[in-house]
Amino acid sequence: MPSAEDSLIARYFKPLASDPGAFDLTDDAALIKSSADDIVVTTDAIVEGVHFLPDDPPDTIARKALRVNLSDLAAKGATPAGFVLTLALRNAEESWLSAFATALGEDAKEFGCPLLGGDTVSTPGPLMVSITAFGRVPVGKMVHRSGAKPGDRVVVTGTIGDAALGLAVLGGGKVHAAVKDAARDHLIGRYRVPQPRVALAKIVREYASAAMDVSDGLAGDLTKLCAVSGVSAVIDLDSIPLSEAARDLVSRGIAGLETLIAGGDDYEILCTVADDRAEAFAQAAQRAGVTLSSIGMVVAGDAVPKFLDAQGREIELKRRSYSHF
Amino acid sequence: MPSAEDSLIARYFKPLASDPGAFDLTDDAALIKSSADDIVVTTDAIVEGVHFLPDDPPDTIARKALRVNLSDLAAKGATPAGFVLTLALRNAEESWLSAFATALGEDAKEFGCPLLGGDTVSTPGPLMVSITAFGRVPVGKMVHRSGAKPGDRVVVTGTIGDAALGLAVLGGGKVHAAVKDAARDHLIGRYRVPQPRVALAKIVREYASAAMDVSDGLAGDLTKLCAVSGVSAVIDLDSIPLSEAARDLVSRGIAGLETLIAGGDDYEILCTVADDRAEAFAQAAQRAGVTLSSIGMVVAGDAVPKFLDAQGREIELKRRSYSHF
Repeated sequence: MPSAEDSLIARYFKPLASDPGAFDLTDDAALIKSSADDIVVTTDAIVEGVHFLPDDPPDTIARKALRVNLSDLAAKGATPAGFVLTLALRNAEESWLSAFATALGEDAKEFGCPLLGGDTVSTPGPLMVSITAFGRVPVGKMVHRSGAKPGDRVVVTGTIGDAALGLAVLGGGKVHAAVKDAARDHLIGRYRVPQPRVALAKIVREYASAAMDVSDGLAGDLTKLCAVSGVSAVIDLDSIPLSEAARDLVSRGIAGLETLIAGGDDYEILCTVADDRAEAFAQAAQRAGVTLSSIGMVVAGDAVPKFLDAQGREIELKRRSYSHF
Repeated sequence: MPSAEDSLIARYFKPLASDPGAFDLTDDAALIKSSADDIVVTTDAIVEGVHFLPDDPPDTIARKALRVNLSDLAAKGATPAGFVLTLALRNAEESWLSAFATALGEDAKEFGCPLLGGDTVSTPGPLMVSITAFGRVPVGKMVHRSGAKPGDRVVVTGTIGDAALGLAVLGGGKVHAAVKDAARDHLIGRYRVPQPRVALAKIVREYASAAMDVSDGLAGDLTKLCAVSGVSAVIDLDSIPLSEAARDLVSRGIAGLETLIAGGDDYEILCTVADDRAEAFAQAAQRAGVTLSSIGMVVAGDAVPKFLDAQGREIELKRRSYSHF
């Protein structure tokens, strides 16, 4: 005589709970076994209408919910160990849940991050997916936001600004009209399904003096990293890696560089590395299949980071990041 | 130049982040240091209009959000170690946030469960508080739902049904009209602010063969425990512990016993214990300040648990628990 809620969990989510510490989702809690590693804990929620759109497909919602957390773990140098899921649903629609759980399971498997437990609640309001993810690092090896030193290079993975442009495409308007189908799909894909740099976790741990993931905009996130590290930075705008689609929109004047570096949802890793280790870092990353770009230098001081154009002039940013309030 | 979101976190939540693993909430993740203990993980969310009422005060919402998780940890025999918080807010109203954070901090201190990290997001919909809490148990000592054996006593802490009556009082109607002010306050208090049996965690670990917290209704939760343990149970309705207020309402025919044992939000511990250890268990609990009541016996079989009245007749339950769907 299981409740509808229990049936839902057994049908859709039990197959994802492959870790013995999940107890097949039949207990009140999960277990992370004692180990020689430190446990890194991160929590990120995504809300319908805020982090994803009401008509986004269930599989991309599932992937985004998990991947934004995996991105945090990777930036901290942690290897994924598992996650717990809180799902607030207006109703328990089978086709939606089935697609959601299948995609979540695929990502959990791909990234080695099994479902450990969760809570499913009803809500009269927007759909919300809250995930707390766990990773392992050798004792004392978590990579912090603090730790950047003057003289370090500022480095970022992948490309910046695609997700902000993807959101603009989904919103219609001039960006939507200006891009071709392939570019459109690329940008929307980057907004809906981040590519967490899990493959870089151990390398970040080995090389980075400070790291964080870029989720609220490169400019704002770099500002936070510098503030916590007690340093400043000078960034060369031309070095910021852009996708072909983004570069095309910028060159045609349809999107401004400011939108790209203050927009959110990149889920790339921003880090700093000692200058004499930057080359080895880039090579190790390349072997792991991740492109690194050096975009500037850490400098002494407590000024907000400067962004310089090709002529070496500082550009003024009206906005540096996304804020919920 | 911190964002409004960062200012909010620094002002209201940083004071709660006393654990060194919280890094003053200035990093992307928290750290649970490697230790010889297993880590028990539980996650429970509360939603406005579902788990609490729109006009419930912010301090009781905060306490309930944390305590429903502490209740799970206690039932698993785990000592609190910390928690992460996801707060989905429609707006960032100072007076509300201040009262919420102050109460959350008081509870975190009282129960030795510091804030480790979190995520604050905006939502157009109902307020939601999702907490993932961590506890420690010696390796292999987490108490499971499975483990109940025929011949074990069925035991429950505190009193059952007060929260369901408290919700009925808040809903107005006959229950509201039938109770005096003091009883009314008691019942509402039990709905709004659960009393997690944290003091019992180590004792549950020592004595219980199986345990869970009663959150969705005693009858339904016992059914789940029995199903996972592969046993059944026979419960003596008259032995179910009721508060004076609840007993009065039942004796006057205003509330039915079924409402009390199928209602949710008790946050008491339901457990089983070998018959020859029941007395020592009760004494240890009493020394810890928690009242235990023996309410029946575990029996062999896979039938749903039976509830017998004073004449030994089985009563039929139309409903055994609260379900979200």
